[in-house]
Amino acid sequence: NEVNTQFGHYLIGIGKAEFDIRSIGNLPGIKDIHRVSDAYKLVSKKWKVEDTVIDLGDGVRIGTGHFAVMAGPCSIESEEQIASTIEHLQANGIKIMRGGVYKPRSSPYSFRGLGIDGLKMWYEQTREAGIKIITEVMMTEQIDAMIDYVDIFQVGARNAQNFNLLDALGKVDKPVLLKRGISGTVEELLQAAEYIFSNGNERIMLCERGIRSYESAYRNTMDLNAVAILKEKSHLPVIADPSHGIGVRRFVDKIALASVMAGADGVIVEVHQRPEKAFSDGQQTLSYKEAERLYSRLRQTYGLRESF
Amino acid sequence: NEVNTQFGHYLIGIGKAEFDIRSIGNLPGIKDIHRVSDAYKLVSKKWKVEDTVIDLGDGVRIGTGHFAVMAGPCSIESEEQIASTIEHLQANGIKIMRGGVYKPRSSPYSFRGLGIDGLKMWYEQTREAGIKIITEVMMTEQIDAMIDYVDIFQVGARNAQNFNLLDALGKVDKPVLLKRGISGTVEELLQAAEYIFSNGNERIMLCERGIRSYESAYRNTMDLNAVAILKEKSHLPVIADPSHGIGVRRFVDKIALASVMAGADGVIVEVHQRPEKAFSDGQQTLSYKEAERLYSRLRQTYGLRESF
Amino acid sequence: NEVNTQFGHYLIGIGKAEFDIRSIGNLPGIKDIHRVSDAYKLVSKKWKVEDTVIDLGDGVRIGTGHFAVMAGPCSIESEEQIASTIEHLQANGIKIMRGGVYKPRSSPYSFRGLGIDGLKMWYEQTREAGIKIITEVMMTEQIDAMIDYVDIFQVGARNAQNFNLLDALGKVDKPVLLKRGISGTVEELLQAAEYIFSNGNERIMLCERGIRSYESAYRNTMDLNAVAILKEKSHLPVIADPSHGIGVRRFVDKIALASVMAGADGVIVEVHQRPEKAFSDGQQTLSYKEAERLYSRLRQTYGLRESF
Amino acid sequence: NEVNTQFGHYLIGIGKAEFDIRSIGNLPGIKDIHRVSDAYKLVSKKWKVEDTVIDLGDGVRIGTGHFAVMAGPCSIESEEQIASTIEHLQANGIKIMRGGVYKPRSSPYSFRGLGIDGLKMWYEQTREAGIKIITEVMMTEQIDAMIDYVDIFQVGARNAQNFNLLDALGKVDKPVLLKRGISGTVEELLQAAEYIFSNGNERIMLCERGIRSYESAYRNTMDLNAVAILKEKSHLPVIADPSHGIGVRRFVDKIALASVMAGADGVIVEVHQRPEKAFSDGQQTLSYKEAERLYSRLRQTYGLRESF
Repeated sequence: NEVNTQFGHYLIGIGKAEFDIRSIGNLPGIKDIHRVSDAYKLVSKKWKVEDTVIDLGDGVRIGTGHFAVMAGPCSIESEEQIASTIEHLQANGIKIMRGGVYKPRSSPYSFRGLGIDGLKMWYEQTREAGIKIITEVMMTEQIDAMIDYVDIFQVGARNAQNFNLLDALGKVDKPVLLKRGISGTVEELLQAAEYIFSNGNERIMLCERGIRSYESAYRNTMDLNAVAILKEKSHLPVIADPSHGIGVRRFVDKIALASVMAGADGVIVEVHQRPEKAFSDGQQTLSYKEAERLYSRLRQTYGLRESF
Repeated sequence: NEVNTQFGHYLIGIGKAEFDIRSIGNLPGIKDIHRVSDAYKLVSKKWKVEDTVIDLGDGVRIGTGHFAVMAGPCSIESEEQIASTIEHLQANGIKIMRGGVYKPRSSPYSFRGLGIDGLKMWYEQTREAGIKIITEVMMTEQIDAMIDYVDIFQVGARNAQNFNLLDALGKVDKPVLLKRGISGTVEELLQAAEYIFSNGNERIMLCERGIRSYESAYRNTMDLNAVAILKEKSHLPVIADPSHGIGVRRFVDKIALASVMAGADGVIVEVHQRPEKAFSDGQQTLSYKEAERLYSRLRQTYGLRESF
Repeated sequence: NEVNTQFGHYLIGIGKAEFDIRSIGNLPGIKDIHRVSDAYKLVSKKWKVEDTVIDLGDGVRIGTGHFAVMAGPCSIESEEQIASTIEHLQANGIKIMRGGVYKPRSSPYSFRGLGIDGLKMWYEQTREAGIKIITEVMMTEQIDAMIDYVDIFQVGARNAQNFNLLDALGKVDKPVLLKRGISGTVEELLQAAEYIFSNGNERIMLCERGIRSYESAYRNTMDLNAVAILKEKSHLPVIADPSHGIGVRRFVDKIALASVMAGADGVIVEVHQRPEKAFSDGQQTLSYKEAERLYSRLRQTYGLRESF
Repeated sequence: NEVNTQFGHYLIGIGKAEFDIRSIGNLPGIKDIHRVSDAYKLVSKKWKVEDTVIDLGDGVRIGTGHFAVMAGPCSIESEEQIASTIEHLQANGIKIMRGGVYKPRSSPYSFRGLGIDGLKMWYEQTREAGIKIITEVMMTEQIDAMIDYVDIFQVGARNAQNFNLLDALGKVDKPVLLKRGISGTVEELLQAAEYIFSNGNERIMLCERGIRSYESAYRNTMDLNAVAILKEKSHLPVIADPSHGIGVRRFVDKIALASVMAGADGVIVEVHQRPEKAFSDGQQTLSYKEAERLYSRLRQTYGLRESF
């Protein structure tokens, strides 16, 4: 397999035979060669020991050494809501705004988002404000229309193994945040990332957002073990989503801070001017005041972690 | 919401207010009116007590009273393999052949199927033999190319909540077999079916294929409770997939027969001329001899069940 | 390890070194020698290919070739209730009555059973009727008091890894029915049985009663894969508990019959004169009329299975 | 229900009827009265808003405001091992030593601990050193023999619903650390604590030690959501067990620190002079050097949390 990305040119050989990899390493034009025993190859830390840092431009970086906070509403709802959110983000030095314009919903009768028009409206306001956009893409056909208005494509938990979508996002020169499946394994998440990388896109973030378990005291089971392990297995940045990870507003704070200690490179949190009036996910969305307290604690916790 | 399908014209009203549904029922042009308390509406048995029977033409029917066996390889591999399978099916009176031409694979480096050319080759041979085709569709863009060669579109477990795909299949006049998600709930499966129905396609089958659990003694945990419950909650046919449901060849037989007793309207099983040489899923694929024994037992078990 | 049971004398050697087992097999007094690669040894089918049949006396046998039905209320409640149940069992040729006198309850404030006096009362009535008793033992200290009144000791799901209780039951000359843990693995169930056997008691039944999963459409997830696999891995009889396995009365019938097709050697079902008035588990308990229909179907289904 | 504990006298009334609780509150001798809607009553925060702090004597306290570290080997192995551990604990200001003398093991052929003699040997050394002992009790019959040598009785995950053991520990005047079941719910853990409290023992700690899930990249799934929720639902101290919670030595550190941020009142960690030679659980046991680094980080993280 031959892979060309934004940053390099890779040849991946998969086989069972034992041979001396140095025989290839000495060929002309080969910079480096590694044996990767993991099922995934390009996203493994076995060949790329140095962690990947994703540069969004304008000094916004995500990855080891650059803790990222992405905040915003579950759904983009109105011009007024966007403006209010941007103001909140700017007041707190947050550079990346989350929000959904295409919403995967269990029921066909639920609100499904404002679509591409909502995205354009959102884009206009963020450009002026110097804020980056992360939003979910649900199908291959949406990519072309969205690409000029998006800084990070998000792949949702329900599409974590939508392999055609992953293939397509591998051919795009925009970073991708890839959520773990509803009950995805760590291995499956890394394999999904391998789909994107092996199609040519190296700028991938892995996102832990809680898994499905038998416990009904909360929404999902936040799996911070996975955060710790992903940081060891892969060179890609790992983002925690405490909003979905526990799904109850008053605990989002604690789980966000715990994620930092488990090794996360950033968090993505749901914030809304009036959570109780949000079109979706209100029960897990922070108010501005709660969010501000969280941002401050996140910085202190990250600072302590980095001092270790 | 207004829904037009092959068979009818439906109006769905969703709201919280209590009102006398008879006031609508008496309007001109209204044939019947029901209150459906389930989150899903059109696929619920609460308004359609009579079970849906899907007619594939040529006397092939699926649903209550018409036990269906769908058999064939995991992947379509070659002309010779197709011919051999067809011969096996005809010798056993099986009318529906399964097989994958687009294969969802965890790793990007695995065999991903023969694609549309494989489907056309397959189609030619089955037409002559009078055999129907069921095969997986993975993305909206594939539908148009596939539609003339397919009798049943299958939605795989990894796409069980790919809502755009479900929307698109709702606009197509071909039956759809919808697999439960890797760790999908019964409710999510019914909501996914509601996506298809509410877009205009009434011909849907629900498929139990095992769920993900902590147990590692087998591949998936076949959930026959779900089969029993789906038959009560919905009017749609329920198909069991024992091959994926346990994932070990020598137990497929027992789980298939158990599925019948749990209420399944049919089974879909993996069969191959030489399972140990299959491109994929060999470990759970039956040989022709094993399959023949199973077909006979299925008929006897179904006969006993119907006598109750 | 040296093990003496009712039926034999065993020496178990555990080690990593490779050696020729024939060197031991030839020693005087050695009847037979086997290498068992499973983590469990004595309960494995690797050395005892012939299935164990447990003889309760009076012609009541459990195991391959002797399908067992155990029926009765969740809790023993009164003399009148016992008399009514016995009459029902006798009318249907059922020889083993289930019922709880010590009830494990999640809350300390729930009804916890009639205790030893309830057992004695029950015993008197069953002796006259020639009915065998199976009931749960919850702690080692109860064994001595119970032993004269019990035909089969049941170990509940919550005690599936109460190793001291298992040790103690290994020293008793009464059969034991061992339930799989709330989320026990197949391997753990076999290891728990190994505790009993290695303490000297060979008469053990394994019981599948559903596992805990994320699904909330029913009580537990009946795992019929486990039934099929246990029959292959062990020589011990396997009993299915469809009442707990799905936990909803109107589906118990289907799951019981499915269990037979999956390979169960018997079923244990909850039956009550007036399920809606039962002290516990009423929602999953059959009425006499429902039970009678089930007994008849079980016999027919077992008959068909044996004809295969 | 009438409950007498070390600290108070409680009357618990359970019923469905609505009535004015003030009518009881005014009776002579009644200090206070509360309506508790939770299934558990005495362990609920609904009546006791102030968190419970457990005093072990000698200035050792556990609960809000008193972060506790319990450290030591999985199994007590030898006099030399105990001496070495005590020296390590003293050098780091740790006051509570963990260790098993009765070990619950899946296989009857594994090492099952040194038993009561091991406990006495251990006790002698700790008394001199002023170190408190926490160790697991597996059955009611062990309590009397152990009680003089134990400061905290630990109930293991496999006995989390061994209700007779819980009853018995409720009658003892020693604190109890109660582990969540292998796949126990938050509600079941609180109900188990209710068993102890309602038998007369108020000094209970709840312990999160990871739950069983489908993920096989680590041993258990540490559920920090549960830590956050337990702190809200109950007034009892909550201890985290990161060693079992992830089960891999090099991640114990991160998960321990994350537990602090999630709200834990303490941690219990496995430490051994030479983890690779430990009789059990070596793969998740820290070396002294790793443990020392962890103790320091725990203090800093707790300090930061308390500053919020």
